[in-house]
Amino acid sequence: MPAAYDSLLTHLHKVHHLNSVLGLLGWDEQVNLPPDSSDLRGEQMAVMAELAHAASSAPAIGEALAELESDLDSLNDAQRVVVRAARRDYDRVTKLPSEFVTEKAKHCSASYHAWHKAKEADDFASYAPYLEKHLELAKREAAYLGWGDRPYDYAIDQHDPGLDAATITKLFAELSEGLVPLVQRIAASPVQAKPERLRGFPVEAQAAFLREVTERIGFNYRRGRIDVSPHPFCEGSGADIRMTTRYEADLPLSSLFGSIHETGHGLYEQGLPLEHHATALGQHAGMAMHESQSRMWENQVGRGRPFWMFFEQQFRARFGAQLEGISSDELLLAINAVAPTLVRVEADEVYYNLHIILRFELEQRLFSGELAVADLPAAWNERCEALLGQRPTNDAEGVLQDVHWSGGAFGYFPSYCLGNMIAAQLWDAVRGAMPDLEADFARGEFGRLLGWLRENVHAHGKRYSALELVEKVTGKPLSPQPLLAYLEDRYASLYQV
Amino acid sequence: MPAAYDSLLTHLHKVHHLNSVLGLLGWDEQVNLPPDSSDLRGEQMAVMAELAHAASSAPAIGEALAELESDLDSLNDAQRVVVRAARRDYDRVTKLPSEFVTEKAKHCSASYHAWHKAKEADDFASYAPYLEKHLELAKREAAYLGWGDRPYDYAIDQHDPGLDAATITKLFAELSEGLVPLVQRIAASPVQAKPERLRGFPVEAQAAFLREVTERIGFNYRRGRIDVSPHPFCEGSGADIRMTTRYEADLPLSSLFGSIHETGHGLYEQGLPLEHHATALGQHAGMAMHESQSRMWENQVGRGRPFWMFFEQQFRARFGAQLEGISSDELLLAINAVAPTLVRVEADEVYYNLHIILRFELEQRLFSGELAVADLPAAWNERCEALLGQRPTNDAEGVLQDVHWSGGAFGYFPSYCLGNMIAAQLWDAVRGAMPDLEADFARGEFGRLLGWLRENVHAHGKRYSALELVEKVTGKPLSPQPLLAYLEDRYASLYQV
Repeated sequence: MPAAYDSLLTHLHKVHHLNSVLGLLGWDEQVNLPPDSSDLRGEQMAVMAELAHAASSAPAIGEALAELESDLDSLNDAQRVVVRAARRDYDRVTKLPSEFVTEKAKHCSASYHAWHKAKEADDFASYAPYLEKHLELAKREAAYLGWGDRPYDYAIDQHDPGLDAATITKLFAELSEGLVPLVQRIAASPVQAKPERLRGFPVEAQAAFLREVTERIGFNYRRGRIDVSPHPFCEGSGADIRMTTRYEADLPLSSLFGSIHETGHGLYEQGLPLEHHATALGQHAGMAMHESQSRMWENQVGRGRPFWMFFEQQFRARFGAQLEGISSDELLLAINAVAPTLVRVEADEVYYNLHIILRFELEQRLFSGELAVADLPAAWNERCEALLGQRPTNDAEGVLQDVHWSGGAFGYFPSYCLGNMIAAQLWDAVRGAMPDLEADFARGEFGRLLGWLRENVHAHGKRYSALELVEKVTGKPLSPQPLLAYLEDRYASLYQV
Repeated sequence: MPAAYDSLLTHLHKVHHLNSVLGLLGWDEQVNLPPDSSDLRGEQMAVMAELAHAASSAPAIGEALAELESDLDSLNDAQRVVVRAARRDYDRVTKLPSEFVTEKAKHCSASYHAWHKAKEADDFASYAPYLEKHLELAKREAAYLGWGDRPYDYAIDQHDPGLDAATITKLFAELSEGLVPLVQRIAASPVQAKPERLRGFPVEAQAAFLREVTERIGFNYRRGRIDVSPHPFCEGSGADIRMTTRYEADLPLSSLFGSIHETGHGLYEQGLPLEHHATALGQHAGMAMHESQSRMWENQVGRGRPFWMFFEQQFRARFGAQLEGISSDELLLAINAVAPTLVRVEADEVYYNLHIILRFELEQRLFSGELAVADLPAAWNERCEALLGQRPTNDAEGVLQDVHWSGGAFGYFPSYCLGNMIAAQLWDAVRGAMPDLEADFARGEFGRLLGWLRENVHAHGKRYSALELVEKVTGKPLSPQPLLAYLEDRYASLYQV
């Protein structure tokens, strides 16, 4: 191994560990921090962020990279993967002037507060200047990194290397074409899911059931834990992964499926090669791929009939009183309830994709300049009605509902829907390889699925982009057809349409 | 304010925040860390320790200090306190060669494991070489800092600036003289405390009662929390303080008084001026003073009759069944049970001091060379019998019982007993100032005591050494007489001797 590669690894380890400490501080802030201690936490995070930035922009990394890139032939495939990703990260931290980074950080903070106030007051106009400034910052950032002519592609590439707006446009158009008729058929169905009948589920019993489920599908609690926080998330690496959930007595399916979702993220992290966590060989292949893992466990697996053939008995053992008078079919229908909602985070797996398509369309139009920020609410409401069949009565349940843009996170929304597509395409592949796979679930066994994901997805880290990996594993380019077929298969029969 | 002082403050803030992050990692390790994640935590702590060391030994601190020290008259009193303490800390991190620091860190780790094995196997001989090496390291460390002729005084001074072995010897001799006869009288008393009758206290109810007690005595849970860990401790600063406890159904007093003890530490930290946490003005005045705060709340306050005049009713409301047939007097006696034990951490507040005197004597003899490590077990057993009236039957319950020496923590034990003395002397002072103070406790009011401690002790930070502060607050030099009088007063009547 060249000495420069050794030096690169040493620095990447330091960066990884500093970032992992920052992550833990963030987790602790959501889970444990006493209410008046946030001032100290802010100062701790600022000091740590400065040190992490200094470590990731250390000139020694640049020198090692330059030396290694001057003779790539002396490296093996794996080493080249590490160098390529390290270059990408290094450029991102070193090509942005520090004044720009400070300006953006300050604007994120101000903008978050402005968004929060605007949402509470249903006052988009007060927030509009902040969003405009964020768009301007995003374009400047893209220019610093050499993407000045394609700022929205740059934004997408941040989250999902190798993807761009043109590719996504094509995928989403095809998805939309198939999805809208399905949604209309379900909406017209006389069959009605009644998840609201599930009420009064004691929180402690929910937590115990959830632990049983997540442990059985394969989460390693010797290297992770689950706690309670206001907004569920998953933080850390496979060496120590922290998931969170929240409980409400009258929304038992929400914490359960939220946790299976986070467990999917956790299983991906736990499947990445432990010895390579500090480099691209042990890191995830982008947000869409990450989301595909959480979605497959939540939806394809967790909402499926075979899964409940095993878990229903245990669910009823814990919640017999609450489930009295609710048949197995009614329970499964409640688990797979499909109904339009104006709010993305409340959407089911069918409608969810339409929420994303809406946001992707509008982001593109904002970046191209075709749509002015001032006209965004009207455009939102119009497209919302076209796609979802509903029109927001105010901006709080419309254009102001999501936090993402207030943090300058453009190009992130598509990952959610791409994750659904990838999940469905991988799901086809794994069932092709093991036609009797779902019979395992009915016996409470999930090891074959997890093993297949570990071998075919997790083990590769960042060696391949999401698009490359999908094609490598499934033999076909990414397509919305497997998702459409899966949704048709599951919901046409449930809703008898 | 001179520019150099400004620069010093900037650096001290960074050091403080890095150390606070290290502290939080340590807390999380004890409270939350999944069992197999300790490898990652070790790497995170190593990276952080290196950065904290770099920050505390930054040449800019040395330059600022040199400039400020060259013109101390330009500083006010408070600034001089900050400079003096910063000099002390800076010398400690910069005068130790990094090879020495590495050698000591490695030896601490090896020595801890050797101690653990030796204790389990009751095999002192296997551990002796590690202890010898620790003594040698301690002497070298003292020499690096200019204390080569007084290495044990150096060790004491690390924990309690301004204290030395000669002072402690005198105090402990006087204490011992008064304590041994009291212990003998109690041992001969026909009155028997029966804490073992308190059994089967549900852990959740214990936690709820403990929360009620600690909140009422003044702990601010908006800037702190209490969790469960194998070994109770208190970590953090008043901006975010993390206490821990552990519960056993058959030892309800153990978790309760352990938590009141940690709350005493927490109240001290919460009373230090928030805006000065990064400097000596907002930091504690040594371990003895810290211990005086935990001991006063635990013992003088928490085990007193007035405290239980208020809390007994609530205790019985939660644990009526468990306390059936136990009278108020029997309960109070169980709370103040005095009985010899070979194990320090199980000792009551009377015997505890003798455990410390034993260790202090032996540490002195080890440092002077009068006692060889090989002869330590015999010396321990002999002095144990003389002081406590009991002889260990093996080294695991004798010389191997404490973890401290395995980490090179010499000169630390005296702080515990000095803390008891300081607590008693402050207790005299506050009751002199407010003769009706304990009537407050019987009404569940603790604000006047806490206010007095905040004003007279906490507010001063590190401005005064423990000895100076005791004299300033009580008008007399530190003496064991208040402790002896307090113990006589409380236990002679309880044990009718």
